[in-house]
Amino acid sequence: MPDLRQRYEAVRQRTLKLAEPLSAEDACVQSMSDASPAKWHLAHTTWFFETFVLGSQPPFDADFRVLFNSYYQQVGDRHPRAQRGLLTRPSLARVFDYRAAVDERIHALLTQHTPQPVVELVELGLQHEQQHQELLLTDIKHLLSCHPLWPAYQPLQATAAEAPPPAAPAWLPVASGLREIGHVGEGFAFDNERPRHQVFLPGCEIASRPVNNAEFLQFVEAGGYAQPQWWLAEGWDWCCAQQLAHPWYWRRASQPGQTVAGWQEFSLHGALPLDGRRPVSHLSYYEADAYARWAGARLPTEAEWEVAWAKAMALQSGLQALHPAGTAGDGLGQVWEWTQSSYAPYPGFRIADGAVGEYNGKFMVNQYVLRGGSCLTPPGHTRASYRNFFPASARWQMTGLRLARDG
Amino acid sequence: MPDLRQRYEAVRQRTLKLAEPLSAEDACVQSMSDASPAKWHLAHTTWFFETFVLGSQPPFDADFRVLFNSYYQQVGDRHPRAQRGLLTRPSLARVFDYRAAVDERIHALLTQHTPQPVVELVELGLQHEQQHQELLLTDIKHLLSCHPLWPAYQPLQATAAEAPPPAAPAWLPVASGLREIGHVGEGFAFDNERPRHQVFLPGCEIASRPVNNAEFLQFVEAGGYAQPQWWLAEGWDWCCAQQLAHPWYWRRASQPGQTVAGWQEFSLHGALPLDGRRPVSHLSYYEADAYARWAGARLPTEAEWEVAWAKAMALQSGLQALHPAGTAGDGLGQVWEWTQSSYAPYPGFRIADGAVGEYNGKFMVNQYVLRGGSCLTPPGHTRASYRNFFPASARWQMTGLRLARDG
Amino acid sequence: MPDLRQRYEAVRQRTLKLAEPLSAEDACVQSMSDASPAKWHLAHTTWFFETFVLGSQPPFDADFRVLFNSYYQQVGDRHPRAQRGLLTRPSLARVFDYRAAVDERIHALLTQHTPQPVVELVELGLQHEQQHQELLLTDIKHLLSCHPLWPAYQPLQATAAEAPPPAAPAWLPVASGLREIGHVGEGFAFDNERPRHQVFLPGCEIASRPVNNAEFLQFVEAGGYAQPQWWLAEGWDWCCAQQLAHPWYWRRASQPGQTVAGWQEFSLHGALPLDGRRPVSHLSYYEADAYARWAGARLPTEAEWEVAWAKAMALQSGLQALHPAGTAGDGLGQVWEWTQSSYAPYPGFRIADGAVGEYNGKFMVNQYVLRGGSCLTPPGHTRASYRNFFPASARWQMTGLRLARDG
Amino acid sequence: MPDLRQRYEAVRQRTLKLAEPLSAEDACVQSMSDASPAKWHLAHTTWFFETFVLGSQPPFDADFRVLFNSYYQQVGDRHPRAQRGLLTRPSLARVFDYRAAVDERIHALLTQHTPQPVVELVELGLQHEQQHQELLLTDIKHLLSCHPLWPAYQPLQATAAEAPPPAAPAWLPVASGLREIGHVGEGFAFDNERPRHQVFLPGCEIASRPVNNAEFLQFVEAGGYAQPQWWLAEGWDWCCAQQLAHPWYWRRASQPGQTVAGWQEFSLHGALPLDGRRPVSHLSYYEADAYARWAGARLPTEAEWEVAWAKAMALQSGLQALHPAGTAGDGLGQVWEWTQSSYAPYPGFRIADGAVGEYNGKFMVNQYVLRGGSCLTPPGHTRASYRNFFPASARWQMTGLRLARDG
Repeated sequence: MPDLRQRYEAVRQRTLKLAEPLSAEDACVQSMSDASPAKWHLAHTTWFFETFVLGSQPPFDADFRVLFNSYYQQVGDRHPRAQRGLLTRPSLARVFDYRAAVDERIHALLTQHTPQPVVELVELGLQHEQQHQELLLTDIKHLLSCHPLWPAYQPLQATAAEAPPPAAPAWLPVASGLREIGHVGEGFAFDNERPRHQVFLPGCEIASRPVNNAEFLQFVEAGGYAQPQWWLAEGWDWCCAQQLAHPWYWRRASQPGQTVAGWQEFSLHGALPLDGRRPVSHLSYYEADAYARWAGARLPTEAEWEVAWAKAMALQSGLQALHPAGTAGDGLGQVWEWTQSSYAPYPGFRIADGAVGEYNGKFMVNQYVLRGGSCLTPPGHTRASYRNFFPASARWQMTGLRLARDG
Repeated sequence: MPDLRQRYEAVRQRTLKLAEPLSAEDACVQSMSDASPAKWHLAHTTWFFETFVLGSQPPFDADFRVLFNSYYQQVGDRHPRAQRGLLTRPSLARVFDYRAAVDERIHALLTQHTPQPVVELVELGLQHEQQHQELLLTDIKHLLSCHPLWPAYQPLQATAAEAPPPAAPAWLPVASGLREIGHVGEGFAFDNERPRHQVFLPGCEIASRPVNNAEFLQFVEAGGYAQPQWWLAEGWDWCCAQQLAHPWYWRRASQPGQTVAGWQEFSLHGALPLDGRRPVSHLSYYEADAYARWAGARLPTEAEWEVAWAKAMALQSGLQALHPAGTAGDGLGQVWEWTQSSYAPYPGFRIADGAVGEYNGKFMVNQYVLRGGSCLTPPGHTRASYRNFFPASARWQMTGLRLARDG
Repeated sequence: MPDLRQRYEAVRQRTLKLAEPLSAEDACVQSMSDASPAKWHLAHTTWFFETFVLGSQPPFDADFRVLFNSYYQQVGDRHPRAQRGLLTRPSLARVFDYRAAVDERIHALLTQHTPQPVVELVELGLQHEQQHQELLLTDIKHLLSCHPLWPAYQPLQATAAEAPPPAAPAWLPVASGLREIGHVGEGFAFDNERPRHQVFLPGCEIASRPVNNAEFLQFVEAGGYAQPQWWLAEGWDWCCAQQLAHPWYWRRASQPGQTVAGWQEFSLHGALPLDGRRPVSHLSYYEADAYARWAGARLPTEAEWEVAWAKAMALQSGLQALHPAGTAGDGLGQVWEWTQSSYAPYPGFRIADGAVGEYNGKFMVNQYVLRGGSCLTPPGHTRASYRNFFPASARWQMTGLRLARDG
Repeated sequence: MPDLRQRYEAVRQRTLKLAEPLSAEDACVQSMSDASPAKWHLAHTTWFFETFVLGSQPPFDADFRVLFNSYYQQVGDRHPRAQRGLLTRPSLARVFDYRAAVDERIHALLTQHTPQPVVELVELGLQHEQQHQELLLTDIKHLLSCHPLWPAYQPLQATAAEAPPPAAPAWLPVASGLREIGHVGEGFAFDNERPRHQVFLPGCEIASRPVNNAEFLQFVEAGGYAQPQWWLAEGWDWCCAQQLAHPWYWRRASQPGQTVAGWQEFSLHGALPLDGRRPVSHLSYYEADAYARWAGARLPTEAEWEVAWAKAMALQSGLQALHPAGTAGDGLGQVWEWTQSSYAPYPGFRIADGAVGEYNGKFMVNQYVLRGGSCLTPPGHTRASYRNFFPASARWQMTGLRLARDG
């Protein structure tokens, strides 16, 4: 399996690359129970290969079986999620050793005669690791945002050429009728993207790009966070309880001369002037929904979103139409887009046998589906049928929105 | 409007009848923030008519505008929900005066020349009051359940004749295809039941009756509350945090000779032997979903449920097929049935203008739809398209389940 | 025992008199876990006689043994304190029956041959009931204060003649030396006032009257609630967490023409203009201590307080010197006075045998001693050695302060 | 000031020595809000010198002024205590640089002409640093105890020779009469140890050594944690809420062959067999008080304790009588001893001018005084008048008890 070996190597190396700017201290601390330390991500993704691919081999360290299990009940005990930050042992250095040792064994396994089920588990492990690559970045972003000085994960290397302010989005029609959504074809997909199935769409129009910071700022400055009429009741309670007045990583700049009316945004490069041209991000579902109502629109359903993407691809306008070129990798740019769809099983959904079956299905309650992908998503990791999901109150991910309206 | 006057009279009287067994003390206390005191229900339903129908007339008591507003932001300030039980003033007697005074004014309004918008608001007020009739009972049930002696709301009048144990449910097929759901026809319906629209059903089978206590007890006694594999992850956390081992109002009887393996159930008549033939009730969504998975089935979607009801009606088997005769009004019997559908707007949903528009739409997040109706639902209040909704953790309502499986 | 019979009758009747203005609803609701419903006070004081005096007789109602036990572990199970407000059963009427039945039995017991231990337990029960008389009033005051309309327990009967503004307090010297404190003589005293014992006083001066509202208002208006330098660290955290800016029952009056700079105070007569001449009340220990520091003084110790009282009595200036005439019974006037002394056992303190021994001793941690008595304290209930105690954060009692300073 | 220079050097070096076994990860994480990261202790003790001694010089890093201020309101803003563990920046290495830079400046200041006020502030800084040396160890102990594998701070170097089981303690009489307590003489003392003043002691007997593990185990095994009669009411609630059954760092050993009935204790060397001969430690005030009551004794007051120490010293039995030789420095041995005295100002206590005045006085509420010193206290840091203090629920310090009884 030379291709899979190369791919394995590439994905695993990319994780190490992402961890490079972090000190052992940065990699150890947990800033809230939803987030995990970078060291834990490095170890858990390795644990995944060791547990599901190398299962019968003696473990690198028997204690790691418990320490780095995330939520797989069938695998056994787990260290409590909210206490991952207390694991100062093993050290970051030893976790790197762990990674190297497991990598060596996986390499030994990947030959021309590797059985197909093992190949599939390795691929699942790589997709899993790619998901954690994005979480590692959003989690470290959260940690650094808790520091009063807003330190950077990485310095800003070079300033992108000034892009012109974006035009108002176009409204792309999605016609009414029976359509198919869900994964199709031979490539990898998670179980929650299957089976492909028919849905009836009522017809709608969908915006050609996500809402950007300049647009969202109008909502902020019009007093949107103080007007209950735009908000779901639960969202309004949430907003009041936390006394919110703007997106999470925004703050008013104390000094003049910064763009977009004196607002700053926390980024992986530290504090930056708020860039009105970029998609607004770090919104909860409540904020995305309130903005859409204020704008006289609504969130799309996940079926509308997927059909619109597919149509755009077919028209050769491709990804371009839905995602104007971002500056991938710099922590600013594209965003996951909230849909109004609750995360639920597709008709005929089947949970896989064994502990791997706990991967997706057991989270299908009180979560909302996000589509698309973000500038922090590893290249090649998303597709039209990809279903990301978070609770309605989650704000530490790269989450924004695209407007829709009834056709 | 002689018909509407009579209907108004009947609904309003029924509420008083429900309050009759309650002392002023029973009617005043709030046992948890989700529940409201009976006195508050009596006043709030009256406030609804005064505010939305008599709006321009001088109020009975200007303070009531704030005290008995539930959640209508556009009407103005509201007394906090969790503090409704602190309102020892006005007294229950004065709330009865309030009801009588508003009734008199509404009667004066209902003539042959009453404008249609007023007629519609009065009807909305009556439907609203019927919803609160059920809440009044479930809330008082909760209050009495908190008393260590499990006192009765009403003594058990007469014992129903021994019914034979029910047969295993039949599986009713629901064929695949495009269907219509949502309210149709001229009768009253809430805004959330509209517009009628097309959905594609994948085809399924649905059980001919809800799961009963005897069946659910098997899950309990098989250790279902201690086995994570049946539960959604969030449900499992919820179950563990509260150390649950059975439905809310169940307890092991301390004395022998009681039916169904020595379990008792709290009811509006106080403690009763658990009756295996009646539908299991007071389940959270998590418990209903876990039971269904344990039973090798799943919850139906709300579309499947509605289509199955309609089909049963058309086949003349009618309500019977879906709801075996309960003993309505005795606090035991039929149940609201959890569906797997998150509460969301139908395609093309429009929120009504004004404060009445806050009735339904703003609750469409993190709630799950229940269908059917319960033995505590006022007669005539439900219909095929009726959408009840509660958060996944709610257990104080008459909530059970009906199984479905892929066709 | 004709005297004790009369005294029993008088104390028991006084409790009923205090409950007279209350509806069954007022008497049932619990507004916070520190407070108890009036009905519970009425029943618990009766339970005390039934349990400790009539112990061997069959109970009026066996369930009351658990429902109305406060904290006596040795008596058996207790209904949880925070859930006393859920006891809508028994009704207030039945609690009155309970009182009458127990009264009848106690009367039968009180003859010329009543054994001394029984006489002492009856006296303890009466002292206990007097303590609950004050609690009944402070608890109902708290309940009514939670109502947005600030309703009255009793209307204000007549306005007291305008008293002249009080002069600045005098500083009464308390000389250094060995003194005795603690109960002396034959009258009743609680176990915590014994044994009388020697203490060494360093010498101090103590103010001739408590701090009044006008004086405390200066602290408020000087920004005292926003200046950490006056506060104990724990008090400052407490103040910030609750965003306090003034005493609990104060609010700025919305209309002009009210005394003392437009402030109102909640009282048992509802909202009243803040009267600068009356002692400030409803202060926590933290507030009392912060005020004293701001005023360049300190709180007295309980030994200093007791010695000063005794000295004032000996000088014939009597109670007058320490307590200027209040208008007892009107909910305004004299206050309990915080001392800087933590509530601790006197040297040689002995806990009584049996459950009665739980009366005082087990609360001797994290509480501070208050001395004096308030306008809500039953006449004749206090004495020089009386030790009241509450946690440092308690504010719903009639708690104020008197300044002291090093001699 | 050659002596002070040497002393400065010695104390500062000792702190570095204590940090040596810690990785950057160990030193960064905060395991609960009461505890601080080792890195924070290293920086804050340095901040103390920089702020109070070098005040007028330009700071090493202006941001550190806020980051490493503990609770000095007059110095300015402070990073929130509960978020000290989020400070992955500055790195541990940079904190070492900070220490070196400040050390250099302090050295330059300490000449033969250093003014006395500066000398006194440097001494205060050293005493402060010694206090943090002990906290650094108890805080790291807590952190490591949260790890499921109970890792060691330092390996156990050598096993002490088997000591014989200790004899029952003797009861040392403390005669009744007027005594003086508080600091006397020219050596250093904190402000809270002054002024020396008279107290009247009622006379008591005090045990010749602290309660040891074997003795406390008898209380555990007799069911003391399940019997409310031994506990203060607040202690009992605390015990029940946390479902406690033994001291904090104890656990039943899973394997046989371990001493003292199969119990283990967590230590700075990891899990060790519970050693019955050593003083019991990590007790809350509640547990110490409950044990004393169970044993038919009580806690001493701080005055009794101090007088007993002074007497023992005068009798040449010296420290020996009160503290049998421990094995200082190994994390096991001597303990701080709870007294029944609430932490309060001595008569005539004066708070120092300026921010240093916040050192002690503002904590004088809801804390209890501990006397003696522990095996983790730096050598030479304690004295007869030393007053340590913690809230009644604190258990992460080396806190035990010595019995007393009325004379």
